[in-house]
Formats: sequence, C-alpha cells, structure tokens
Amino acid sequence: MQYFPPALERLVEQFARLPGVGTKSAQRLAFFLLSFPEEEAVAFADAIVTAKREIHCCPICQNFTQGEGPCAVCASGKRDREVICVVASPRDMLAMERAREYHGLYHVLHGVISPMNHVGPDDLHIKELLARVADGETREVIMATNPDTEGEATAMYLSRLLKPFGVKVTRLAYGIPVGSHLEYADDATLMRALEGRREILS
Amino acid sequence: MQYFPPALERLVEQFARLPGVGTKSAQRLAFFLLSFPEEEAVAFADAIVTAKREIHCCPICQNFTQGEGPCAVCASGKRDREVICVVASPRDMLAMERAREYHGLYHVLHGVISPMNHVGPDDLHIKELLARVADGETREVIMATNPDTEGEATAMYLSRLLKPFGVKVTRLAYGIPVGSHLEYADDATLMRALEGRREILS
Repeated sequence: MQYFPPALERLVEQFARLPGVGTKSAQRLAFFLLSFPEEEAVAFADAIVTAKREIHCCPICQNFTQGEGPCAVCASGKRDREVICVVASPRDMLAMERAREYHGLYHVLHGVISPMNHVGPDDLHIKELLARVADGETREVIMATNPDTEGEATAMYLSRLLKPFGVKVTRLAYGIPVGSHLEYADDATLMRALEGRREILS
Repeated sequence: MQYFPPALERLVEQFARLPGVGTKSAQRLAFFLLSFPEEEAVAFADAIVTAKREIHCCPICQNFTQGEGPCAVCASGKRDREVICVVASPRDMLAMERAREYHGLYHVLHGVISPMNHVGPDDLHIKELLARVADGETREVIMATNPDTEGEATAMYLSRLLKPFGVKVTRLAYGIPVGSHLEYADDATLMRALEGRREILS
C-alpha cells in the first residue's frame, strides 16, 4: 500500500538523490517545502532551473560563471596573471579567496583523480590547464588540492605534466593549523610541520 | 566581491532555507544539482511545483493526500472506523502503518503544542479531531504522539478535551524497546516498564 500520494513520493525521491540526503531527511525536506506558500515553492523550483540554464564554466579557469565570457576573477585587471592556483572545486577557490592573501588566477579541476570513484585524468579539466600554461604567460602553478591521498596524487600527477613547460610548481604548506593544540595534532601533520620548519627571523 | 554568480547564489540561498541545511551543505547541494543534465534539473523543479499544487490535507484525517476527497486510509472500506490514532506528523503515521498492527483511522495534528516554538493548540488540527469524535462513531482515541515532554503535554491536553465525549482515550505503552539491552535502558523507561508490567499467561 502506498501511504504518501504520488506527487509527494516523487518529491521525496528527488530529494533523496542529493548527496548526504537519505530517505528520512528527504521526507523531512519534502514536508518542509510543502509548508511553503505556493509562490515560494515556485521560486525554489525556478532557482533550480535558472541556475542550471545560466551557469556555465568560465572558458579560462573553469569556475562557475553566469552568462557568456570569462568569470569575474579571470576578467579582473587587478590579478597577477602569472600565477595559477589549481583547486579541485569552486568551493575550494572560495576558501582561498576568503583568506584574502592570494591575488593570482585560479584553475578549477572539478574533481580529483580517484580510481575508486572511476574518475580519471580525462574527467577533469586538465587539458585546459595545460593549454593555459602552454600559452607562456604563467610563472608559477600552485597546487591547492586537499591534503588527502587523492588530492596529493592529483597534485603529483599534474606537477609531472607541468614540468616540461618550465614553470615553477608549488604546493600549499603542510603544518599545524593556526589556533590548534599540538597535543591533538596527528603524527603525519607533526612530521610535516617539523620537515617544513622555518627560521625565526628577529 | 561576489565569488559565485547570482543565479548560483540564489540556488544556494534557497537550499539554505531547508531545515538542517547550513551554508556549506547548501553549496554542496547546489553544485550537485548543477551536475545534473538539464532535463533532470527541470524534473526536480517540476516535482517541487507539482507537489505544492497537488498535495492537500485530507478533509477527514488531515494527512497529506493528492487531489480532491479523502485520503486512501479514510476512503478504505477495510479500516475499523471506530478507532482514531492521533499522530503529530504524516511520518509518524507511516511508522504506525509499517508495524502492520493497526487497522483503524488516523488523525494528523501537524505538530505538537510547544510554547517554546510558539505553537499553541490553535495551530494544530485539534478542532477537526473534536468534530470527528463529536460525530459519535468513535469508540477509542489512541494517543501516539512522541514520548517526549511536548508529545506528552499534547496527549494530556487532548485527552482532557476528549473526556466529555465519553470516548475511551488511550496512550501507546511505554517500556523497553524490543531487541534492546536492559543495562542501557534509562531510569525513566525502566520505571515505566515496571509500572506497565503484564502478567505472563501460560
């Protein structure tokens, strides 16, 4: 016996497709949406369709952008065009921007190499990165993939591809996070922090 | 500076309105939706609008139903129409149905009395329950609200309202859950299980 009417079942199924949303959560979200006034539910639906139709990847850095042409960062005249920071996702780019310390360009891979999830180099925007570096304007490529196995492997893979172009390839520093406690730092992090120790210049 | 294009920001904001979805999760969900083919994104949006337009509360039990007229349970000829089980939400009704032990009707309150959340008796479908009981067909009303403070208070409040109608008002039994371990049961549950002990008839 079907306990929820078909239109509600369908909405629950759609929510259950989203990452990290199980059947129970999907039900909760669907019920919550039903409590919206109709115009707000329509606005929600419209936001989905509009985003899908209008958001494209920037032809240069592959970050999400709206409409034609390059994204705001690539189009900006204030950026150091000789440095490219390679990130796995637009969210990682956002994290870098929040730090307000980086003023170069980006390149968004839209994933990392992950054989477990059947993601190979061809599924990422690597060709576009090589084309940018081949243009010759680039001085340095900073690898800012996550410090996990897949992020590391992707960074290593890319650095080998980039070496022939004669650009400097760097990696974000490993170490103890600012504001953390040494006693809670894991061994691998402490080892890397020791390896990468810097002289205190007074 | 705006890092996400407006259409993407708008989608993230819409997802962030959902319960239990923070900004980070909303970004993750929005990015995931962008990875859908366009027809699937449109199907998702359509499911929202269709559900909102076609799902109504059953005029009898207030459970969600599609189209005009009473829901499947209220319309069924196989149900014991003299018993009404009062639940807080359609999901609780679903849980009862899954147990396959109850064959009466339901009444969905769509919430519980909760002064902390500014939910009073008038915000729930209590008038409709009283009208059903006043019709005289009802023999027993089973309170199946959650065994927490608000659920308890709501059940007590309703039972006082229902007493004048001369119907039997019952409550789901408290006790140790089947398959659990006594050593992990909390004091309140053990006390209630002792209070409600039953004779073993051999």
